[in-house]
Amino acid sequence: MSCSYCWTKLLASLMGPTSCAHWETLPPQLVRPMSTKLLSRVSAFVEGIGIGSGVKISVATHTIPISGESSTLNPSLDGNQTDSALDAEALIQHRRQFSSLAGKRYFNYGGQGPMADSAIAALSDGQKTIQMKGPFSAEVYEWITEEGRLVRDAIASTLGVTAETITLTENVTVGCNIPMWGLPWKAGDHILMGDCEHPGIIAAVRELCRRYEVTVSTCPLSDLLQGGDPVEIIQQGLRAETRLVVISHILWNTGQVLPIKELAALCHDHSSKTRLLVDAAQSVGSLPLDQTGWRLSETEVDFYAFTGHKWLGGPAGLGGLYTRPAVFEETVPTYIGWRGVEVDGTGEPTGWESTGRKYEVATSDYSLWGSLREAIAVQDSWGDSQARYNRICSLSRKLWEGLREMLHVRCVLQDAPPPSGLVSFQLLDADGTPDFEQHGALAKQLEGEKIYVRTLLSPNCVRACVHYLTTAEEIDDLIIRIQTVAEKFGG
Amino acid sequence: MSCSYCWTKLLASLMGPTSCAHWETLPPQLVRPMSTKLLSRVSAFVEGIGIGSGVKISVATHTIPISGESSTLNPSLDGNQTDSALDAEALIQHRRQFSSLAGKRYFNYGGQGPMADSAIAALSDGQKTIQMKGPFSAEVYEWITEEGRLVRDAIASTLGVTAETITLTENVTVGCNIPMWGLPWKAGDHILMGDCEHPGIIAAVRELCRRYEVTVSTCPLSDLLQGGDPVEIIQQGLRAETRLVVISHILWNTGQVLPIKELAALCHDHSSKTRLLVDAAQSVGSLPLDQTGWRLSETEVDFYAFTGHKWLGGPAGLGGLYTRPAVFEETVPTYIGWRGVEVDGTGEPTGWESTGRKYEVATSDYSLWGSLREAIAVQDSWGDSQARYNRICSLSRKLWEGLREMLHVRCVLQDAPPPSGLVSFQLLDADGTPDFEQHGALAKQLEGEKIYVRTLLSPNCVRACVHYLTTAEEIDDLIIRIQTVAEKFGG
Repeated sequence: MSCSYCWTKLLASLMGPTSCAHWETLPPQLVRPMSTKLLSRVSAFVEGIGIGSGVKISVATHTIPISGESSTLNPSLDGNQTDSALDAEALIQHRRQFSSLAGKRYFNYGGQGPMADSAIAALSDGQKTIQMKGPFSAEVYEWITEEGRLVRDAIASTLGVTAETITLTENVTVGCNIPMWGLPWKAGDHILMGDCEHPGIIAAVRELCRRYEVTVSTCPLSDLLQGGDPVEIIQQGLRAETRLVVISHILWNTGQVLPIKELAALCHDHSSKTRLLVDAAQSVGSLPLDQTGWRLSETEVDFYAFTGHKWLGGPAGLGGLYTRPAVFEETVPTYIGWRGVEVDGTGEPTGWESTGRKYEVATSDYSLWGSLREAIAVQDSWGDSQARYNRICSLSRKLWEGLREMLHVRCVLQDAPPPSGLVSFQLLDADGTPDFEQHGALAKQLEGEKIYVRTLLSPNCVRACVHYLTTAEEIDDLIIRIQTVAEKFGG
Repeated sequence: MSCSYCWTKLLASLMGPTSCAHWETLPPQLVRPMSTKLLSRVSAFVEGIGIGSGVKISVATHTIPISGESSTLNPSLDGNQTDSALDAEALIQHRRQFSSLAGKRYFNYGGQGPMADSAIAALSDGQKTIQMKGPFSAEVYEWITEEGRLVRDAIASTLGVTAETITLTENVTVGCNIPMWGLPWKAGDHILMGDCEHPGIIAAVRELCRRYEVTVSTCPLSDLLQGGDPVEIIQQGLRAETRLVVISHILWNTGQVLPIKELAALCHDHSSKTRLLVDAAQSVGSLPLDQTGWRLSETEVDFYAFTGHKWLGGPAGLGGLYTRPAVFEETVPTYIGWRGVEVDGTGEPTGWESTGRKYEVATSDYSLWGSLREAIAVQDSWGDSQARYNRICSLSRKLWEGLREMLHVRCVLQDAPPPSGLVSFQLLDADGTPDFEQHGALAKQLEGEKIYVRTLLSPNCVRACVHYLTTAEEIDDLIIRIQTVAEKFGG
């Protein structure tokens, strides 16, 4: 039996000094039903093997939370996943900072998050500052340097790492490409990737393999839908020659969360040369990565590529890469420009920058930096990352439960709600068979009503994302609309 | 003897059916004194070899222009390089669109150009459109697609090429890195680069050489300062194994213009495998690349990497790459993402995009696209590219002549003014020796007075750039300030 969130073997941990940290930080709404179930099984197990009840039953009892408890004001829903009047009013007040959310019901956070008005204003302010102080001047250079320091600090704080490990990139994909092209490949090396990766990443790995005579294989992470264990699945895919494992922290199609700490340990135990690259497109800004048990610096993940424009609500065009200090030297820059290079007094390049700036290239839209910082500050002003994650999970459970009750809808995750904000489902015809053409029709029809969801191709489904910004009423509305369309189609 | 602008051998052209197109399009102010000199030499030559005066003397006579003639309203200065009252007023009116130019005297166009207020507003408008229509929705996707089409059209029109040859990048350096990493390298291949390239490009080439066992050598383009011929210099650097030649269209340190059409022909005649990559950081937005004789499509250049944020006055964070159709297939993407990849109905990558989008990666700040388009429109509203270039050359001549008269200043170009807006110079001490420490002091002192110039390390100098937006009065002010500082230092 495993923790559904980090897949730590719970029974194993009962025997040892460590346990799965998630059990102390998971949202109460998610833990409660499972931990009750777990508790009975663990009790039976403990009874069976004769361990005293004091040893680790505390793991289970600890995870049965007091209803509604949270680390900040009003972050979570009550047992029926509806906001209290006070919570609802607080959220409405907070949402007033996001003009773009007005008049619509938005469920595409996994595609792009709405920006707070102040984050949009920060873009203009940044541009005007640059133009007024320069645009090219020593004063602007100092300003950009300081803005870079501040945004790296803000990102590092969000990930639970230090600022010098952070590279700023245009997007998450560039963040993935940096280590993919920067490792010292040898012919015969092997790349293992999950079968749920983004097409862009798949194409990059293929080109990499072609050029460096590297082989690639995929492992069936889609088996997680049938209760598979990701550590076992990846373990079975590892080879003696495996140099790089490429996975996502949150699977963009199913919303499942992979246990990256355990997977990093698996990779590093497998071989001193095996590295783990994590596509964090869906996890930064949704998982509480600055909290104990989640903190990136505790995971030993080698590369973690992310973007600010999805769950953090930052501007499109700014993402980044975390590189674990232990693998920083072996990973060299590929696309290269002045930002990553040190020069001598004659302008001659003498080496790389000693921080994550090593992989940065050249001139960017620097106004994005202050905007992302503002976006992070707005989110923090509502509640800490744990509170926001609790709320996301409460809401995705609410949506998932609502969808599960529908006759003509099948949730992609059938046994438990996603431990993230991504809820994927399929529409079923009168015979109970998914009809993929209907997904596009549903997304189109809903967009006409200013309800925003998207379709995915693999598995062919519709994805609705909930954020801490989502209201319970939005979910109720979405459920009603899907129900109406699904019945019309399926009936 | 060569044309000072494209280095076409004039005497050779006298013998054949073609001549150098620049002689018909160069700014009158620049051509006049030289063509007079040329005329006498050519006449003597023609007399010497017995060719009738009718054959090609027309090349010289054609280039003696009518004073002040230009292709649009008031684009050029009079013989003393001062604006007429009417011209000055028109320019002041035009400059009112650039709030950032108010209260300062700006000469760092080669670092970053000022943005028109409407181009800054286009950024906000773009962000708001995305946020209001989505941010992630089918409607936004359509809007982004159309914005991409429009900005590629605008760029292509500026370069005199077709839109499908254009790749949008974050900056000029990424544009250079795409072909550098995308050519099918073989161990033993050779790269020839000029000795005036940007440190970031030098570092990229070195890393490329290390990885693919490719060799690099530099050719002394700095000899152009002593009257060297760039075609000869590069010809001497070519080897049987030369796969790529990397040069700049305008040398960022001296302001000299390289004859890229002739150099492309040289490369292609040398070997069917030799490609020419041009760093166009300083040329796009300053040279009239949409005019006959300059048009990129006429040059056969293989790769031309540029940015919008310097001479075009666009936003930082958006540049591009032109790829000649004949070399498009052999040049593969390196950093790869969804924007460059085609997928099938299951989301499986099936190949590359068939246009320049092949080399684009993933999510960008799409609001930059409309902003650059607006920046280009503002420039076009003042006069066509030929008129703007005429004015740039008139002004750089004015500045160069002013500097040349100073006892304690030495222009980096000593024999003729730069055929571009980049004017570099050194401060001399009492013994007539350049004192490099003084350059930083001058730039700092001037910035304190809101006069913006920059220092360069190789050659160690100060660079002041003039744009068509520059006023004659700004140059007068700059000359006076440099004179004062130089005398204080040199005296």
